[in-house]
Amino acid sequence: MTTQEPVELEPPQGETLRVRRDGGVLTVVIAAPPMNLLGPELVRDLVSLIQWAEADEGVQVLVFMSADPDYFISHVDVTQIAAYRAEAARLTGEASIALLFRYLSASRLVSIAQIEGRVRGAGSEFVLACDMRFAALETAIFGQFEGAFGQLPGGGAAQHLTRLLGRGRALEVMLSADDYSAELAERYGWINRAIPGDQLSSFVQRLAQRIAGFPAAGHVAIKERVNAIALAPVEDFRFDSDQFGEGARTPEAQRLFAAALGAGFQQRETELDLGEWLGDLPAAEGGDSSDQK
Amino acid sequence: MTTQEPVELEPPQGETLRVRRDGGVLTVVIAAPPMNLLGPELVRDLVSLIQWAEADEGVQVLVFMSADPDYFISHVDVTQIAAYRAEAARLTGEASIALLFRYLSASRLVSIAQIEGRVRGAGSEFVLACDMRFAALETAIFGQFEGAFGQLPGGGAAQHLTRLLGRGRALEVMLSADDYSAELAERYGWINRAIPGDQLSSFVQRLAQRIAGFPAAGHVAIKERVNAIALAPVEDFRFDSDQFGEGARTPEAQRLFAAALGAGFQQRETELDLGEWLGDLPAAEGGDSSDQK
Amino acid sequence: MTTQEPVELEPPQGETLRVRRDGGVLTVVIAAPPMNLLGPELVRDLVSLIQWAEADEGVQVLVFMSADPDYFISHVDVTQIAAYRAEAARLTGEASIALLFRYLSASRLVSIAQIEGRVRGAGSEFVLACDMRFAALETAIFGQFEGAFGQLPGGGAAQHLTRLLGRGRALEVMLSADDYSAELAERYGWINRAIPGDQLSSFVQRLAQRIAGFPAAGHVAIKERVNAIALAPVEDFRFDSDQFGEGARTPEAQRLFAAALGAGFQQRETELDLGEWLGDLPAAEGGDSSDQK
Repeated sequence: MTTQEPVELEPPQGETLRVRRDGGVLTVVIAAPPMNLLGPELVRDLVSLIQWAEADEGVQVLVFMSADPDYFISHVDVTQIAAYRAEAARLTGEASIALLFRYLSASRLVSIAQIEGRVRGAGSEFVLACDMRFAALETAIFGQFEGAFGQLPGGGAAQHLTRLLGRGRALEVMLSADDYSAELAERYGWINRAIPGDQLSSFVQRLAQRIAGFPAAGHVAIKERVNAIALAPVEDFRFDSDQFGEGARTPEAQRLFAAALGAGFQQRETELDLGEWLGDLPAAEGGDSSDQK
Repeated sequence: MTTQEPVELEPPQGETLRVRRDGGVLTVVIAAPPMNLLGPELVRDLVSLIQWAEADEGVQVLVFMSADPDYFISHVDVTQIAAYRAEAARLTGEASIALLFRYLSASRLVSIAQIEGRVRGAGSEFVLACDMRFAALETAIFGQFEGAFGQLPGGGAAQHLTRLLGRGRALEVMLSADDYSAELAERYGWINRAIPGDQLSSFVQRLAQRIAGFPAAGHVAIKERVNAIALAPVEDFRFDSDQFGEGARTPEAQRLFAAALGAGFQQRETELDLGEWLGDLPAAEGGDSSDQK
Repeated sequence: MTTQEPVELEPPQGETLRVRRDGGVLTVVIAAPPMNLLGPELVRDLVSLIQWAEADEGVQVLVFMSADPDYFISHVDVTQIAAYRAEAARLTGEASIALLFRYLSASRLVSIAQIEGRVRGAGSEFVLACDMRFAALETAIFGQFEGAFGQLPGGGAAQHLTRLLGRGRALEVMLSADDYSAELAERYGWINRAIPGDQLSSFVQRLAQRIAGFPAAGHVAIKERVNAIALAPVEDFRFDSDQFGEGARTPEAQRLFAAALGAGFQQRETELDLGEWLGDLPAAEGGDSSDQK
């Protein structure tokens, strides 16, 4: 299979993204140690990558994967909310990752998430913004846990999950704030398919190359019509984003974030079983977190 | 896990509902022998329960289950349509269980249906109005059978099933008027999950306590956004409710109800296999029901 | 089980359709050798059948199946686009099979697709327009491959698949242009259920007779409410139809169709594995199709 592109530009590398090109497909490896938190650097690099890829007519498909087998994107860095939001404004003019993610959904580029490890909060919302999601059956773990902090997910989860999973399952996922296996995520419609880990990469690469080989006009026509039905309008993403932004600034939310951070939140080991761990978080409300594991 | 509530009021008991409180969770056991038909008493008690729970800020989650292992809620009592509808008006001002059910869906309270046994007609519509539905894998049976009597389901099934199951499966379920196993109900999206019966109660209680432990502001924010997308407007529920109410009063419907009642409808034994039984109902149209089993 | 109809008219036979009547159920066997392409004859016969069935109050349910075990409806004949569209206008006044298919969806008649063999392109769109879809687990194969030719599906696939499968899976199916097994089609919601081939016919016939035995007023009421929610408006089908019609006339599309036809497209043997085969189609863009299998 040879590419038709006469000149194939090398994509720019980012501090948190490693990018390789194979014909019309860019494979983007997220590498933001220690646990792929979504902070200003990662948002900045995502913005630059999307801008670069959209400007090159030869690029048709983006594949996102992670360098960390345990974390795809863990979630936003709650200590840097203003900073990462500001980075998003470079692409959309608005300080909101919900609108950044929606920009990707609406792009002519076809985006595929190849998920290994944990993908929670804004990580889940990022893969929901991708056009397709395939996850490693054994290792991928999903969570939309903002409710544990009394918050509405701000990056579009309510928009996507409600449409994909239906009312009952979307409510369960967001109200429980719990972890979900790849198998259950597939059954619920959160992802396209759970695929055995040793076949995931070849499956996604074959699919990406296949799509990149078809006429780009078809991608655009199909995405436009599907998005017209199933992608929520900008104002709904903006509303959710604003609600999270305002909610996260309240003293109550700041107190909950601080208690969680003090107890191990945003630490690699703690978050391996974040779903379980959050079930104990309410105990911190009384100020007594000493008996949390 | 200790509750933060200083005073925990005891919930009122109803003639058809037994209620116990455990922190922010009310577990409501439906007990309306002989087969949990939805009649005026059960509607009256549901209205009182919802009013009481909403007025107590300490209550976050309602869990509904049945005292009868064979019937969760069988369906409405077709001999008392006007009477049970009138009871619903106490809560919403309108004589319609569709609007009562929708009121529950829109409430700040999180509602979970823990389903064992048969849940058909308005019983199915009640659990569809709950925020989540978990069913015993071995014993739960689902049916939306109003079509067998030439009627549109009036309690919101068309609204919920179409959105949850999609056009093809919603049409199948309502046009076939047949019984569906918990396994198939899960596959179709009618329920969140089918869970082995011996694990169901502990699963639901853990989930309910977990949700009740998270800040109530999150419940409200999440429910509002999900409902804005996936909960049909009041006027659509009212339309369906009116159509059933008018349809059920026609001579043709009354004749069909009478023939069915005469042949064993609304009797505990007959309804164990109601789906199968209804397949023979059309024979009654000719007035000859003698060969019905 | 006896029918209530005093006189049971014999349905008309078509050149490409064999029709048999059993009470309120018409079973329609598609027989358009060599591979059940959707051309002007099949569209003409479908129009006549629908008109005849709608005019006979005794007919309640249409079951569509195929005489060819390998092909249900393969797809449109791309060499006869103008001709088959013109035939559709007899029913709806507009030269569009999307509107013909939507007419069937909106009809008082209940339609069930009993799928064995391949159903791709407009074939998939025809079964999506049916009220229910049941497929042989071992032999049914699904594809929505217009994207391989740079086209939006014109017969309603974008409307139906997006609503049934959700954004991610609908994009995957249409962008990949690949083949999907009955098992995966069920998991994605493309069909109601995949059923072992040796049980499929008896399952569908029982269901059809059951539905036909219930009062017709219920069919109409249920279909109207479900369609009000889940069936896209006429203008959206028309838009997609126009986009395909215009796109297929462009020199680029004509060149792609010609290259494909030259390489074996619309030939029975080639299309057995059309999904795989289309993955090599882009190579034809350079004019070199010599190494295509």
